[in-house]
Amino acid sequence: MSARGSLQLVPNTLDFAAPGEPARLDELLPLGVIRTASRLQHWVCENARTTRAFLKRVDAVCPLERALQELSIVELPRPRKGGTEPESTDLGALLAPALDGHDLGLLSEAGLPALADPGAALVAAAHAAGIRVVALPGASSIALALAASGMNGQSFAFVGYVPVAAEARSARIRALEAVSRRDGQTQLLIETPYRNAALLEALLAHLQPATALSVSVGLSLASGFTRSDSVSHWRQRPTTLPADIPAVFAFLARR
Amino acid sequence: MSARGSLQLVPNTLDFAAPGEPARLDELLPLGVIRTASRLQHWVCENARTTRAFLKRVDAVCPLERALQELSIVELPRPRKGGTEPESTDLGALLAPALDGHDLGLLSEAGLPALADPGAALVAAAHAAGIRVVALPGASSIALALAASGMNGQSFAFVGYVPVAAEARSARIRALEAVSRRDGQTQLLIETPYRNAALLEALLAHLQPATALSVSVGLSLASGFTRSDSVSHWRQRPTTLPADIPAVFAFLARR
Repeated sequence: MSARGSLQLVPNTLDFAAPGEPARLDELLPLGVIRTASRLQHWVCENARTTRAFLKRVDAVCPLERALQELSIVELPRPRKGGTEPESTDLGALLAPALDGHDLGLLSEAGLPALADPGAALVAAAHAAGIRVVALPGASSIALALAASGMNGQSFAFVGYVPVAAEARSARIRALEAVSRRDGQTQLLIETPYRNAALLEALLAHLQPATALSVSVGLSLASGFTRSDSVSHWRQRPTTLPADIPAVFAFLARR
Repeated sequence: MSARGSLQLVPNTLDFAAPGEPARLDELLPLGVIRTASRLQHWVCENARTTRAFLKRVDAVCPLERALQELSIVELPRPRKGGTEPESTDLGALLAPALDGHDLGLLSEAGLPALADPGAALVAAAHAAGIRVVALPGASSIALALAASGMNGQSFAFVGYVPVAAEARSARIRALEAVSRRDGQTQLLIETPYRNAALLEALLAHLQPATALSVSVGLSLASGFTRSDSVSHWRQRPTTLPADIPAVFAFLARR
């Protein structure tokens, strides 16, 4: 038996920017996940303040084993310019509690850690150090958006962000559409919320009219929706996207 | 306001083949999802028998609004040889309850419907018929395996199954590794459980020694694990995979 603790990948809710009082956490996450979270005394996260808010929601369902102010909550190093992952030397220190035998939680701001979110380098460092990694069941907005799109769920790619500069953006969109047509592969992308409308405009300008385009906004919010339609229909009847709620974009070219 | 009902994509648990009594459903799924499921009186699914078992688990947490035997439970048409999706004419009949104003649930055998699972054509038909599609929050084994792998979560592709025939399989694995190296894209694949060991053997035979390979088995089961290591380490210290539990394979080539 190893005396090491595990790294628990704790899913967060997707109710980002939901108005009013947050729902009870067991409405949005499985009780098993909340119970595990209530026992963890060491956390790595993107943002300590929002992690404390999450832990208060945990406490309201499953009382924390230790008081909030006694917990160790450490932020991931900020990614450097260009989005490269932090140095592995920084990550070793974050894993110290697990090496000392304590289970360690990794939490992102929404959805699953390490998926379209920081944390993958920490997970890789954990594997390299012989620390058991456990992904607790929770929702990913990318996976939900794909399911809601009605597009090919047997072959899909998440490609992250496309370039912001107009020429590079249109070239990238056309290249992804060519891959989608050749392989029958659904392409998924995201954008910073305030650029949602600009990305939609670029997709409508550069994709072929028969290509299917789906946009999922505010998944798991009451105000959320998924529209999945041909590019030509989108052009005829545009939808205005909110600038303050994350959206996931998916498209599949007609073969 | 539309008088149409919605299509609710209901996540199933991942505790496939778990030994003993199943856990209470709220241990594994959010209460909000279970409550929504308890109200639905029309279901489309892969397997009516396992759907009734799921609904009994729902009933134990949130009593069903109507008795189980009064619910309409219809199976998706079997995919034809070659895995092509069913005809849209078959799907129209399945959507009839939603067109008549009833909310309709779509359930798969595990995880999210329509993601590496049947149902995408039904979701597409719902969009085409103006039926609102709602993806309820739940776990996808593909997304969890990616998070647990520690590999690139900013760019990844799920490619489904690779060919079974040896020569086509090795060619496909090498082609996917070339894409992974060129684009820095994590490649995810699955196999029928009884062929888990054969797929692992093929990956170890055909991937480069420095390529990172991750296998997640029985995610969300107590016996589940994720091993993420270089191909050369996998070759030195092999892991035996179970033949009766689904596994997700991921790899990322060294650039």
